Amino acid sequence: MKKFVNDPVLFVDEMLEGILVAHPDQLTQCADNNRNIVRAQGGDKVALVSGGGSGHLPLFMGYVGEGLLDGCAVGGVFQSPSADQIYEITRHVDSGQGVIYIYGNYSGDIMNFEMAGEMAAMDDIKTVHIVGNDDVASAPKGEEHKRRGVAGIFFIYKAAGAAAERGASFEEVKRIGEKAKANVRTMGVALSPCIIPEVGKASFSIEDGEMEIGMGIHGEPGIVRTTLAPADEVVDHMMERILADMQLNAKDEVAVLVNGLGATAKEELYIVYRRIAQTLKEQGISVFHVYVGEFATSMEMVGFSISLCKVDEELKDLLSQGARTPFFEQAAF
Amino acid sequence: MKKFVNDPVLFVDEMLEGILVAHPDQLTQCADNNRNIVRAQGGDKVALVSGGGSGHLPLFMGYVGEGLLDGCAVGGVFQSPSADQIYEITRHVDSGQGVIYIYGNYSGDIMNFEMAGEMAAMDDIKTVHIVGNDDVASAPKGEEHKRRGVAGIFFIYKAAGAAAERGASFEEVKRIGEKAKANVRTMGVALSPCIIPEVGKASFSIEDGEMEIGMGIHGEPGIVRTTLAPADEVVDHMMERILADMQLNAKDEVAVLVNGLGATAKEELYIVYRRIAQTLKEQGISVFHVYVGEFATSMEMVGFSISLCKVDEELKDLLSQGARTPFFEQAAF
Repeated sequence: MKKFVNDPVLFVDEMLEGILVAHPDQLTQCADNNRNIVRAQGGDKVALVSGGGSGHLPLFMGYVGEGLLDGCAVGGVFQSPSADQIYEITRHVDSGQGVIYIYGNYSGDIMNFEMAGEMAAMDDIKTVHIVGNDDVASAPKGEEHKRRGVAGIFFIYKAAGAAAERGASFEEVKRIGEKAKANVRTMGVALSPCIIPEVGKASFSIEDGEMEIGMGIHGEPGIVRTTLAPADEVVDHMMERILADMQLNAKDEVAVLVNGLGATAKEELYIVYRRIAQTLKEQGISVFHVYVGEFATSMEMVGFSISLCKVDEELKDLLSQGARTPFFEQAAF
Repeated sequence: MKKFVNDPVLFVDEMLEGILVAHPDQLTQCADNNRNIVRAQGGDKVALVSGGGSGHLPLFMGYVGEGLLDGCAVGGVFQSPSADQIYEITRHVDSGQGVIYIYGNYSGDIMNFEMAGEMAAMDDIKTVHIVGNDDVASAPKGEEHKRRGVAGIFFIYKAAGAAAERGASFEEVKRIGEKAKANVRTMGVALSPCIIPEVGKASFSIEDGEMEIGMGIHGEPGIVRTTLAPADEVVDHMMERILADMQLNAKDEVAVLVNGLGATAKEELYIVYRRIAQTLKEQGISVFHVYVGEFATSMEMVGFSISLCKVDEELKDLLSQGARTPFFEQAAF
């Protein structure tokens, strides 16, 4: 196991200890639990809360900060946080204007967020759920409710977070989050698995020279396992699926996210983006903004994902607003 | 080779094509060569130019932008850029106030930057060289001039870049860059090699369960190869070397950079930082600011480095200034 860890059982808690001691001006914990991450300075605004398993940094807690989330419940590696955690965070961040839950489409997370929402309702805290389901590889068109949430959740955080920061109402932030959710599609490819520290070995393997297109960020099976092709061919395969699902028209505009899954070099992500840009140009689709980097990882997995988010004037305005967390900074542009 | 590439011969140029098409508002090329990267909008200021081999993103070109560098000459993977490239960039970015060269202590880079400086002198462009040599593992104390430059160059860029952006004079920017250089020390550890695309296989190997402390970012030999120890032990070994070399006193203040070499998860970098923070606290040394992420990589190498930069009021002021490139954003703090 090529990892720098102490006792694997302490992986998440030592990581969180490191994060909280590194960024005390920006992040803190609530309800005496270092797995309940909230902004060090709260605001009088509609609150946004996420949560999910560890092992995906900067997902999920890395987006707690100005212009993005207010709190995040952190689970064990690839495990849902508890309903109690989410409820405690909800109570902490609610300013009376309600709390919007944004998380990925995984059964454990859904169950726990729903339970937390019911507990919050007994305290008269209004909540609503936006469940990211951007992974086009995980279920066919028409069955979007079965799709997994992956890197595209970034666009939901960014758009809804910008609106909330500006003081938009609960209904307005909800509407914007749902619009971003409806407009984003993602597809991933992996060349290697990753290792859960407590397990100590990969739960599956990919031969050298093979790739799995459509693999999920926990190693869920993809749609095709085949010989590793040149980067442009891999991108073409993924873009074809994404574009078929989105049904964009010439003159439409998109934001693009090229996300490294952990061990893929940024050099390669830009070789990937080069081909994406060519394809979009050929189809007459404009690129509003490009994000390239690690936005949703699987620890040391080799691979990347492509997300496209169709944007209109409203989403462009929100995406271009500044944001600041210890894991993601963006000046307004 | 678990990489997403097309023809490996085109690795650098396709990467640069991707970068330039992704960030046209921020970066452009000069002298009709996409390996000559400069800011899209130049300024009337002392100019900072860097350069070096590819394969280390965000080094070196990722630091071209507001509050950091003005231009960067990009070489092949692990190869120096040419003197002509550096000279062309120098001519492009000089506003009459001189150009400061900041690069790592590698013979090819030194030779080419010196030649470029001589060519610039014939055009009456003033230049000076600041050669990063922060890697304490690469030569003993007293032989600092033999040490390699690694991730610590970030602090030279950041301090000198902030001063230049504020309009400081050539002599002043030089003084500040040299101060940052004198104050920074780095040490790295690797658990795996990386593969140069054109070569297609690693130039050395590290057995599973082994680590090499002090390894360079091109795989230069380290000071000890041994069994992989728990993260805290690895950190203690590295910190002991760094602190012995820096000779800090209680009440001194440092900025810390925990740099991933490519394939090491951010989760682990924070487990590492947790131990660094404990050690510094025990010694009464304050932490001014912490950077955790990928700042100087070796493509998909597994490993990390620790850099400490001793800071005074002047350096704190400069490090906390805002900066913005496609690879690094920081709001003023």
